[in-house]
Amino acid sequence: MNSIDRTKRTLMGRSVSEPNGTIGRRTFLARSAGIAGAAVAGVAASTGLAPGANAQGLAGHPWERVYGAAFAGYGQPSRFELPVVRHFLRPYGDLAPGSGAALTPIESLEGIITPSSLHNVRNHSGTPDIDPKQHQLLLHGLVARPLTFSMESLWRYPMTTRTYFIECAGNSLRNLAPKPLQLPAGAIHGNISCSEWTGVPLRMLLEEAGLQPQAKWLLAEGADSAHMSRSIPLDKALDDTMIALYQNGERLRPEQGYPVRLLLPGWEGNTSVKWLRSLKATEGPTHTKDETSKYTDPLPDGRALQFTFEMGVKSVITRPSSTMTLPRPGFYEISGIAWSGAGRIRRVEVSTDGGANWVEAALTGAERAKCLVRFRLPWEWTGQAVVLLSRATDEKGHVQPPRKEWIAQYAPDARFHNNSIVSWAVNADGSVKNVYN
Amino acid sequence: MNSIDRTKRTLMGRSVSEPNGTIGRRTFLARSAGIAGAAVAGVAASTGLAPGANAQGLAGHPWERVYGAAFAGYGQPSRFELPVVRHFLRPYGDLAPGSGAALTPIESLEGIITPSSLHNVRNHSGTPDIDPKQHQLLLHGLVARPLTFSMESLWRYPMTTRTYFIECAGNSLRNLAPKPLQLPAGAIHGNISCSEWTGVPLRMLLEEAGLQPQAKWLLAEGADSAHMSRSIPLDKALDDTMIALYQNGERLRPEQGYPVRLLLPGWEGNTSVKWLRSLKATEGPTHTKDETSKYTDPLPDGRALQFTFEMGVKSVITRPSSTMTLPRPGFYEISGIAWSGAGRIRRVEVSTDGGANWVEAALTGAERAKCLVRFRLPWEWTGQAVVLLSRATDEKGHVQPPRKEWIAQYAPDARFHNNSIVSWAVNADGSVKNVYN
Repeated sequence: MNSIDRTKRTLMGRSVSEPNGTIGRRTFLARSAGIAGAAVAGVAASTGLAPGANAQGLAGHPWERVYGAAFAGYGQPSRFELPVVRHFLRPYGDLAPGSGAALTPIESLEGIITPSSLHNVRNHSGTPDIDPKQHQLLLHGLVARPLTFSMESLWRYPMTTRTYFIECAGNSLRNLAPKPLQLPAGAIHGNISCSEWTGVPLRMLLEEAGLQPQAKWLLAEGADSAHMSRSIPLDKALDDTMIALYQNGERLRPEQGYPVRLLLPGWEGNTSVKWLRSLKATEGPTHTKDETSKYTDPLPDGRALQFTFEMGVKSVITRPSSTMTLPRPGFYEISGIAWSGAGRIRRVEVSTDGGANWVEAALTGAERAKCLVRFRLPWEWTGQAVVLLSRATDEKGHVQPPRKEWIAQYAPDARFHNNSIVSWAVNADGSVKNVYN
Repeated sequence: MNSIDRTKRTLMGRSVSEPNGTIGRRTFLARSAGIAGAAVAGVAASTGLAPGANAQGLAGHPWERVYGAAFAGYGQPSRFELPVVRHFLRPYGDLAPGSGAALTPIESLEGIITPSSLHNVRNHSGTPDIDPKQHQLLLHGLVARPLTFSMESLWRYPMTTRTYFIECAGNSLRNLAPKPLQLPAGAIHGNISCSEWTGVPLRMLLEEAGLQPQAKWLLAEGADSAHMSRSIPLDKALDDTMIALYQNGERLRPEQGYPVRLLLPGWEGNTSVKWLRSLKATEGPTHTKDETSKYTDPLPDGRALQFTFEMGVKSVITRPSSTMTLPRPGFYEISGIAWSGAGRIRRVEVSTDGGANWVEAALTGAERAKCLVRFRLPWEWTGQAVVLLSRATDEKGHVQPPRKEWIAQYAPDARFHNNSIVSWAVNADGSVKNVYN
C-alpha cells in the first residue's frame, strides 16, 4: 500500500536533529518507553500461559468473566464513546431545531472516512422523511426529452464509486469572531466530512435527456420544505458531478439527502443539493433565494463575489487541538486533515513554533483528488509553551493563507470560504487553546 | 480519479456486439429510456419554474410541506432502510445468542467500504463491554522488556491508515450444502467486510519491547470470555500487521474489538484477534483450542492442513443475486465485490451464459492490496433464463476455482476457505436463484 510505505519512508528519512521537537521514527522508538508506561517486571518469567487463562491472573476484568452481548442487526458504538457526537450550530435555537448545521467532531476522529452518523449536516428546514418509492427526480428545461427517474430506475444505472469531501462554504466562520473561541476543533472547523460515494454520473442522465444547445446552467432543487435551490454551471455537471445514491457502502443517510443527492466534488457543500427532486437546464443562472441571500463573498470595495464555488486549500490539526490537555511532556503524534477543492494535496507543513520553522508531515490519501488527506508528524513536547500550525499546498500550487492575509481580502462581514491557517497554543500546563497567530 | 476514468474507458471501449447481453456505454445510453420510464410530456414547456415552487404542482409530497427533523448528535439510516440488517448464523440459537456470526448484507450495499454497523461479526462468546480506561495490552514472552500499554498510551503512538477486508475463514460454508440454499447473497457469502482501519504498526511495539532471537511466533489473546487465542508467525507480525484503534474514522465498534484489535491484512479473520489483551512472543505456535478444534482444512487422504492463514482470491456478484427478482427485461448493471488475501485484484470476468463466454468487468479500487474491489458490467437481460458467474484473478496469478474443482481438493467435511465461483440463475420470470453450476 502506498500510504504506509510513504509514511515509513518519510518518518525514517527524517533526521533526529529536526527542529522544534519534531522527531524521526527511530528516535521515537528509542525514547518512547515514556508512552508505554512502566515495563512489566517479572511477567517475562510467567511462561506457559495456557490459552484461555488470564495473563493478569484468574481475576481479570468483569467482561472477561461473563458471556458477552448477543448479535445486533445494525451495530452501534461503545457506550464509552457516547460523548462523540456532532456539534450543533442552531442560529434559531428551538424555534427551528433543524436549521443551521451539525458539525463533525473532527477532534475525535482519525483516518480519512467520516462515519456517516457523524457526517456534517447543513440544513435549511430540517431533514425530510422521504419515501423512496414515492420520490422522483425530474430532468427538464432545455432538453430534448424531459425525463422522470424513480429511485428504482436510478438504482439500475451504471454507477461509479469515489471518495470526496464535502465542506460547507461557511465552515470556520466561527474563527472570524473578534476573540478566538475556546471550543473543540470540530465546533469551529467541523463543517467538513469525507465519504465514499456511489452513484450515477450526471453526464449519463443529461446525455439521455439530450441537452439543447442554449443550455449552459442547471437549476438543482431539493425536496426539503425550503426547496433549497442552486444554479450549477453545465461544465461542472458534465465533468465529475454525481447523482449520489450510496454513502460509505449503504444508502444515503437522510441527513445527507436520502434517497438521492447531487454531488459536486470540491465545491461549496450547498451546491450538492440534497433530496434532489428537480434538475432544470437553463440558459443562465437562476439567482435563487439561496444564492443571493447567502453564499456570496463581500469585498472591501462594497462589491461581492458570486458563484465562488470551489473550496480553497485548507488544513486543520485535529490532535492536539483546542480544549484538549496534554497530560505530560513527552512524545505525541500531531495528526490532522487537509483538503482542496482544486484537486490533490501536494504537501502539508507543520510548525511547532508559531510559524518560524516548518516541517513536512507524512500524508495518507494524497493520491485522491477532492478527498480528505490525513497528515501526521511525530512530535516531542518538552513542556514549554508552543504554538502549532499547519499549512497545506495543493497540486495547483495554491497555499493556505495566514489568517490576517485572508481577512484582508474581504469586507468585515465576509463569512464564507475561510480557509486560513489554524493556530493552537499548547500552554506550559498542557492545556491547548485556540489562538489567532 | 483513476477509478472513474478506468470505468469510462473500459465501458466505452467495449463494442456493441459483445456476447450475452453485455453492452457498451453508448449502447446503454441509446437504449436506456426503458429504465427512466416514460418521458414527461409537456414539462419542457413549463418554463419559469420559480425557485421554491414545486415542479409537480403545489401539492407535492407530504415531506415537502412540513418542517423536517431536528439535528441528531449521532445519525441513523432512514426508516425505509430498516430491512437492511446483518444475517445471523447462530448455531446454538438462543442458548448462546452471541456465538456464531452476523453476516454483512452484501446484496444491499454498494461501493467498497462496509458501514461499521453492518460489518461482519464472528464471535465465540458474545461481544464484551470493555471499559477502555481499564483495558490494557500486555506484550511479553521472549522479549527484552515486557510492556503494558494503556489505551491512552496507544492513542499517542504514530499511526497509519489503510483500507483492508476482513473475511472469516468459514465464509461461504453454506454454499457447501448438498443443495443450493435460497438465501440472500449476504446470508451465504457475507462473512466479508471492508473498512478503513487506523492504528499503530505492530512492528513498532515489538521493536520497543525488543524481541529475543529465538522468538518466531506470537500468541495473541482476546479479552472476551472465550479468550479467543491464535498463534501468529512473527514474519507477518513484523510486516503489515496493525494494532487497530479506529474503524472508518471513529473508534472501533465493540463488535470489531473495541478498544483494540489485532489486524492481519488478507488473513483468516479469526487471526485478527479482537479485544486484544495479550501478545506473547514464543518459539513456536501454541496450538490453542481455537486453532486445533477449528480452522484446519481436512484433506481427502485423512490429513489436515493447519495454519492456512491467507484467504484465497474470490468474487461474488451482489446485484442481481439470489432471492432478488428482476422486474422486467431490459438494462441492468451487474455489480459485485472481489478480493484476495495475496494482494491486489488484477481482473474480474463475468459470464452471463453459465461460463461459456467471459467478459472483463470494470474495477474500482484495484490499486489497493487486500482490499475489496467493486466490479461492474452493464448488461441487457433479454428475458431468457441465464446463469451469471464471476471469476477473479489476483496479481499473483491465482484464479478463483470452479466449485467442483475446489471441493475435489478437500475431504467432504471441509468448511473453511471456500473461495469457489458463485453462480446465480436468472429465470425467465425474473427470479434469481442460487445454483451449483
